[in-house]
Amino acid sequence: MNLYNIVEESQRRMAKYQKTMTVNLTSDTATRPTPKMLQAMFAAEVGDDVFRQDPTVNKLEATAAERFGMEAALYCPSGTMTNQLAIKCHTQALDEVICEEKSHIYQYEGGVYSMLSSVSMNLIKGERGKLLPGQISAAVKPRYDWLPISSLLVIENTCNKGGGSIYTNEEARTLVQEARSSGLAVHLDGARLFNALVETKESPADWGKTFDTISICLSKGLGAPVGSLLLGPENLIDRARRYRKVLGGGMRQAGYLAAAGLYALEHHTDRLAEDNARARRLGEALAPLPFVASVETVESNICIFHLAGALMAADFLDDLAEHGIQAVPFGPQMVRFTTHLDVTDEMVDHVIRTLQKMA
Amino acid sequence: MNLYNIVEESQRRMAKYQKTMTVNLTSDTATRPTPKMLQAMFAAEVGDDVFRQDPTVNKLEATAAERFGMEAALYCPSGTMTNQLAIKCHTQALDEVICEEKSHIYQYEGGVYSMLSSVSMNLIKGERGKLLPGQISAAVKPRYDWLPISSLLVIENTCNKGGGSIYTNEEARTLVQEARSSGLAVHLDGARLFNALVETKESPADWGKTFDTISICLSKGLGAPVGSLLLGPENLIDRARRYRKVLGGGMRQAGYLAAAGLYALEHHTDRLAEDNARARRLGEALAPLPFVASVETVESNICIFHLAGALMAADFLDDLAEHGIQAVPFGPQMVRFTTHLDVTDEMVDHVIRTLQKMA
Amino acid sequence: MNLYNIVEESQRRMAKYQKTMTVNLTSDTATRPTPKMLQAMFAAEVGDDVFRQDPTVNKLEATAAERFGMEAALYCPSGTMTNQLAIKCHTQALDEVICEEKSHIYQYEGGVYSMLSSVSMNLIKGERGKLLPGQISAAVKPRYDWLPISSLLVIENTCNKGGGSIYTNEEARTLVQEARSSGLAVHLDGARLFNALVETKESPADWGKTFDTISICLSKGLGAPVGSLLLGPENLIDRARRYRKVLGGGMRQAGYLAAAGLYALEHHTDRLAEDNARARRLGEALAPLPFVASVETVESNICIFHLAGALMAADFLDDLAEHGIQAVPFGPQMVRFTTHLDVTDEMVDHVIRTLQKMA
Amino acid sequence: MNLYNIVEESQRRMAKYQKTMTVNLTSDTATRPTPKMLQAMFAAEVGDDVFRQDPTVNKLEATAAERFGMEAALYCPSGTMTNQLAIKCHTQALDEVICEEKSHIYQYEGGVYSMLSSVSMNLIKGERGKLLPGQISAAVKPRYDWLPISSLLVIENTCNKGGGSIYTNEEARTLVQEARSSGLAVHLDGARLFNALVETKESPADWGKTFDTISICLSKGLGAPVGSLLLGPENLIDRARRYRKVLGGGMRQAGYLAAAGLYALEHHTDRLAEDNARARRLGEALAPLPFVASVETVESNICIFHLAGALMAADFLDDLAEHGIQAVPFGPQMVRFTTHLDVTDEMVDHVIRTLQKMA
Repeated sequence: MNLYNIVEESQRRMAKYQKTMTVNLTSDTATRPTPKMLQAMFAAEVGDDVFRQDPTVNKLEATAAERFGMEAALYCPSGTMTNQLAIKCHTQALDEVICEEKSHIYQYEGGVYSMLSSVSMNLIKGERGKLLPGQISAAVKPRYDWLPISSLLVIENTCNKGGGSIYTNEEARTLVQEARSSGLAVHLDGARLFNALVETKESPADWGKTFDTISICLSKGLGAPVGSLLLGPENLIDRARRYRKVLGGGMRQAGYLAAAGLYALEHHTDRLAEDNARARRLGEALAPLPFVASVETVESNICIFHLAGALMAADFLDDLAEHGIQAVPFGPQMVRFTTHLDVTDEMVDHVIRTLQKMA
Repeated sequence: MNLYNIVEESQRRMAKYQKTMTVNLTSDTATRPTPKMLQAMFAAEVGDDVFRQDPTVNKLEATAAERFGMEAALYCPSGTMTNQLAIKCHTQALDEVICEEKSHIYQYEGGVYSMLSSVSMNLIKGERGKLLPGQISAAVKPRYDWLPISSLLVIENTCNKGGGSIYTNEEARTLVQEARSSGLAVHLDGARLFNALVETKESPADWGKTFDTISICLSKGLGAPVGSLLLGPENLIDRARRYRKVLGGGMRQAGYLAAAGLYALEHHTDRLAEDNARARRLGEALAPLPFVASVETVESNICIFHLAGALMAADFLDDLAEHGIQAVPFGPQMVRFTTHLDVTDEMVDHVIRTLQKMA
Repeated sequence: MNLYNIVEESQRRMAKYQKTMTVNLTSDTATRPTPKMLQAMFAAEVGDDVFRQDPTVNKLEATAAERFGMEAALYCPSGTMTNQLAIKCHTQALDEVICEEKSHIYQYEGGVYSMLSSVSMNLIKGERGKLLPGQISAAVKPRYDWLPISSLLVIENTCNKGGGSIYTNEEARTLVQEARSSGLAVHLDGARLFNALVETKESPADWGKTFDTISICLSKGLGAPVGSLLLGPENLIDRARRYRKVLGGGMRQAGYLAAAGLYALEHHTDRLAEDNARARRLGEALAPLPFVASVETVESNICIFHLAGALMAADFLDDLAEHGIQAVPFGPQMVRFTTHLDVTDEMVDHVIRTLQKMA
Repeated sequence: MNLYNIVEESQRRMAKYQKTMTVNLTSDTATRPTPKMLQAMFAAEVGDDVFRQDPTVNKLEATAAERFGMEAALYCPSGTMTNQLAIKCHTQALDEVICEEKSHIYQYEGGVYSMLSSVSMNLIKGERGKLLPGQISAAVKPRYDWLPISSLLVIENTCNKGGGSIYTNEEARTLVQEARSSGLAVHLDGARLFNALVETKESPADWGKTFDTISICLSKGLGAPVGSLLLGPENLIDRARRYRKVLGGGMRQAGYLAAAGLYALEHHTDRLAEDNARARRLGEALAPLPFVASVETVESNICIFHLAGALMAADFLDDLAEHGIQAVPFGPQMVRFTTHLDVTDEMVDHVIRTLQKMA
């Protein structure tokens, strides 16, 4: 079943159960702007960002850079673009990127690093998407003519496919030190970094100090409609800006979108604690259910669980859909629930009641 | 002098002459939404376009496809992306693209076709950016192991660097026939196609019938803040959608921007006749001036002229800036004026008076 | 320690122990032509192969194609080139190649598939470099915009890093059927295929029937100085020939080298049984030694073993070198012995005596 | 008519006129080794060049580097590979290469720079394939996000498509100075450099001093069966060696071919004066013929001429073939004669007599 079948199927279901379909646990990319965010968007002052003359984009980039204590930032249409620009800026053709095998850059970005950067992946099996000390230095390749050159480490925090697992900054610093001692540059895929920070009580600046570059998404938990930021040293960001332009990511009066990002950075970071708490509630409710084999530890706003017996994810999700709850399969018997700005306590209550009724 | 110097310099000037700086003739990408367009954006219904669930993006794509009589359309952050996706979809690695040497895809897209499609360019010197009958078949390469395979013709209408030159549909059909008889696919870079259509009184459907794919820009003369559309057969657009995603051009709730595009398609195409008329007025006023060597024929909203004697573009533009008029150099003694939504008759009067005073 | 240090170091050792240095177990690429092969080379009739006018190259290609029952063959400077041309011909940009994680195409070809084909790898952990039934269909990706398209299976027989492990044709056919039912093309990296065939008593034609394309090396066990062949359907080989040319692999009067390949195909395939037998003798002698933790099953001409206790490969190889025996490390405590045309029974005796003395 | 038709056609003709077909003026790549060269090949000492252990390859590289006064050299299967490795080593993705539009790297290497280096070409129209002073600095692009970065100048001496035109070292130095003052690296495509040197009486060292890298072909006028050398600084050559390996250009016991190259460098450079003289004789004989419109100045071993009236190259070459003379078309009414090691004075006499009879 391909994507378009899935979407059609999902729309068919939506139509069927429209009256009751109320809870979207598919992804935190599904959020719509709050009224106040929308107000901020349409009050935005704009200009031509291709010439760096959009004051709102400029302000968003400056604000984010300052928050992370980094020199510069670049506003992009998506997290795929910020991650891929980072890979492009840190590598040469025929280098390799070291990352955990569950990483978003390997799993969900279409293998486009091959096309854009002519690099390959050196994949490490860690735990819940997290690398363990010692694994990086063991993976770095010696210099032979027939081997890629290991040149970049990418860490993802929180790790989506790892079940929203969290690195503490201390854990990350240990890995970064290991990477640097082997001559690697270090990039943080921080698409959901703020979901981690509300748990660890660390600051963006702690992470800005640790990595060469960081990408963060404004359109996931933070609730902006579009956009991601790449943060890093000024000369690297200048190079990334050129790549963004020629890849077609230069948007003229992007200030309308950037205004949402600014609003999100100012008003939506602390509230991620609520999303995380709701995901934990879901995990706790799932654990004792007879049709649930196991629930992976819920560390942030993602709850991944495994179905028991012969229950398949497709059938289970169909049942949920009849009760107005939408989620995504993560394997034949594996399901992911994601909480976000548009999922309230009442919705979580409804999900839990429904699951218990299904049991 | 690099881009950033230019921007800084321009901002310096802006600050200096702020009171009088009123006319921006640099580019039709500089437009800001009208109040009504902004209202349409503000009211847009949105969803996650990566899953094809943004109703406004869907409506924009369907509307544009219908207008051109083509099967499908894809909304992208920029015209560079729509053009490059077309090249990607029409070619294989080590093919070549045939185009006039002034083409935007060769001149202003960073040579990124090499990186994204592994293709090279077979450049033809035509007239004012337009190819002449017979040139294409003469340029198509025979099949030798050491030669690129000629596989795509790209035509630009209007041609920016050609001074806004216009192809009639009949002219284009002749070239397309020539290309097709050599087995080439044909793409139209129609970033400013609507500026041509108001002159030739042709319809989008005339052009949809002629080409395999067409890209149009919503953020140039049409006045939307961001966005371009690639139009073509459904299966090609499906492939382009995947490339858009992995290049980082998949935007989540893009409906806010798409709404501006929809508004522009409905309300801003006819008014391009005004922009074209204003550019002609500028051309007529420039021609007799003593410091103007020649003015290229004004066919649409672009007016390119050459300075006489030892007058350099940089100095001339400096003088203009003192009178609140901004434009761009197109060569050491060459200047481009571009009219657009934000350039009124009064502004054109002011520019003409200023030029006459300078004479 | 990089390659050049290793080479310098090795040359230093060579100089030191020159009198006794007699056995080269580093690689079966190290062979020198026999006098008869050399005679065949210099009697070759040659022409310009870029124009397909070298009769010896043409004869080698025709002979190999016929032997495998395949339509056409292409002579290339190396096995890296034949494998990479196969990947190029079978894939489109942003596809992925499925293979076992020990595969040569992933491990030892510099990740160049990213640069040449813009594809990524979907790596499967099998056993001794061999895939198991069911693994391929489980690895094939569904069609989502953000995923690579699985389009090619590559199997390596014998598998170098798998310790020279052998697929029977029946095992391979099972995997190929699985791959084809998922729409994958199938390529065999048969660099050392003939080392397998002397064990399984299968014919080249059995394998030609099974795969879309096959690459074989003439410069490994077969003993030719240079060269590999890509075998496949005529139209694919025509495309590969063009890629070979532009990658710089078109050699003018290549017949001198091709003649060695022809000689090898005619006279050196059966004698690989001797190499395999000698590798088995080495394995049997190593197993009981106190400093050997374990010896991997010897299936062909490669013998990989693990050192016991604290004995490091570098030190062990140093000791061997003092007795005129050269081999390569395959891990910190892992060593590979490879037998080939230039390793005689007497040399194997010497190695075994030396190892027993060291114990 | 594609390549394969041409080759078949040519073979058909060859068969038809076999008895009389004696003179091959198609290309100086067609040469076969002299008996002494073959003897040198036969006696070569070889090793595994992938590990830098082939003494003959090492000697060839050292000899050539010393001759040019450059640090290092790399032996490759073809001139396409040496040129493309140079481009790869001197550029970054999205850079551009400046060269005359007749250059081999643009015309005859399949546009593969796009695939291997992600670069585009900035083509200049010079004279007979030669750039003129001032053209380079006028072509270098300013730094805007949407423009390629000009980073490499490539000059070809002699220029094949320019009719074998020669740069003096003084002319080249002027251009190189111009390029360097714009920050460009400079590569010499010296496939036929030795044909120039015998005319200008300059030394290889004069040219080694002028350029960053130089490629020379051993398999053209010099008469070796296979091979080219890339010359340059040691660290660049080390990088090129790695690219050569992963592109599949690493040949194991390449010493047999390298020996021919060594012999050619020692014995075949001076004799190129004969080839040049013979080409001049052909040019002088062609000029007065009624069916010849014009003959381009013959500066080295290439003679390009234009046919008069309605005489087409295809028909003219057919007539020549009937008299045992083979040459290649260079345009619809354009023909190229190339002299080389296997073209004797007697053959030239025969060609001239034949042409005069045809008149």
